[in-house]
Amino acid sequence: MTYCVAIKIKEGLIFASDSRTNAGIDNISVFCKTSRFEVAGERQIFLLNAGNLGTTQEVVSLLRKEVERGVENNILQLDSLFDVARRVGDTVREVIRRLPSSSSGIDFGCSFLVGGQIKGEGQRLFMVYSAGNFIEATKETPFFQIGELKYGKPILDRVISYETPLGDAIKCALVSFDSTLRSNLSVGLPINLSHLPQQSINHEGEIEIATPMTSLIDESNELFQQLRQGWCDGLQYVFKTIPNLDWWKK
Amino acid sequence: MTYCVAIKIKEGLIFASDSRTNAGIDNISVFCKTSRFEVAGERQIFLLNAGNLGTTQEVVSLLRKEVERGVENNILQLDSLFDVARRVGDTVREVIRRLPSSSSGIDFGCSFLVGGQIKGEGQRLFMVYSAGNFIEATKETPFFQIGELKYGKPILDRVISYETPLGDAIKCALVSFDSTLRSNLSVGLPINLSHLPQQSINHEGEIEIATPMTSLIDESNELFQQLRQGWCDGLQYVFKTIPNLDWWKK
Repeated sequence: MTYCVAIKIKEGLIFASDSRTNAGIDNISVFCKTSRFEVAGERQIFLLNAGNLGTTQEVVSLLRKEVERGVENNILQLDSLFDVARRVGDTVREVIRRLPSSSSGIDFGCSFLVGGQIKGEGQRLFMVYSAGNFIEATKETPFFQIGELKYGKPILDRVISYETPLGDAIKCALVSFDSTLRSNLSVGLPINLSHLPQQSINHEGEIEIATPMTSLIDESNELFQQLRQGWCDGLQYVFKTIPNLDWWKK
Repeated sequence: MTYCVAIKIKEGLIFASDSRTNAGIDNISVFCKTSRFEVAGERQIFLLNAGNLGTTQEVVSLLRKEVERGVENNILQLDSLFDVARRVGDTVREVIRRLPSSSSGIDFGCSFLVGGQIKGEGQRLFMVYSAGNFIEATKETPFFQIGELKYGKPILDRVISYETPLGDAIKCALVSFDSTLRSNLSVGLPINLSHLPQQSINHEGEIEIATPMTSLIDESNELFQQLRQGWCDGLQYVFKTIPNLDWWKK
């Protein structure tokens, strides 16, 4: 499986994906599930994928091929992220249509988180389903998850709002990963973590699309070890401080 | 959906189940998912169910009917909990076999947690799958969950071991419910909470099967409100105390 989360807060966009894929438990590999398409200063597009690896790789490769060959209206030319999400959805449908029908017993489905910014509009975040349809994040629903999402959802539900400060939102995404990593073997390090700040000012004093910051967090990452240990110790502490109650009294 | 958890610790067995069932989101009802079969001082058997309500109700009703009619080898006569789990599994198979094949698009599947104690053996806990096969809890794997299990699994993974004190294990089960209730609308109050202590001593000084303690926890339960608030406040506190780190430095 996979775990990906994308958060849209006031201070920008955050993307995080794990790196484990498995076809059966004896066929485990490391694949990056974050793809980036960019034109510096003009557009930044992140694609995070979950689901059938054959399908998602083909979708990303087709989109890249269009860019490389300069095909008209490729995702580096579309003028809104809504159109990018549609293009991703169309490509998902196209790839799945060519595959044998589901009677083969294999699930060829996938889902994508598509987020970023294109000059002329604000930051946007979409979740694209296997059918190629999609929804957009709002201030009221500022995060999306795909893959093994349930283990890590409670902490996001408790913490994340559109106004959450950047540091807290990143911390929350990583705590959410910690819970998922502990409870599900099909999700594994390293984590690809990215942050796209709100638009920045360039040398000429013009507003332009910011450059993302990225980090690859693996077992040796001391900051992540500190966060995991701090969260684990803190949870144990809180758990102990809640009184044991006598539930059997009326 | 449903959420049920059963824990087998040194001090006894703990069972907890929610009460919400839904067939579509506009057809939500309250059903107790914990059934008990007992012969005071001689056997205590708990059945917790998840999955298709038609299937699980039929299974429990068939088992009850056997008891009421005094059918030979009903679950109040079997001399081990292993045999009880087999009987539950057989009944699940029997009920599902009579239903139309899965081509109808409806999932008739279900799962059961079967736990308790029968005089002559120690406490035991089983998880029965839709196919009627089952597994038993051990000291190394002291809890089972069925239904919407993922939201509440991380805290159980962190806290529960065979040696966990009773108060902590109950607290952990309820914290696990709190996370699930917050993140999933298909799981709802009240919670049926039961505890079967290790065997007790009766008036004649003989060792016998203990009498379970039970509690129905609904919205108005002040202890549960305290626990939820304490856990929520504690999590927020711990979350704030973990430092915000600069992930972008190498």
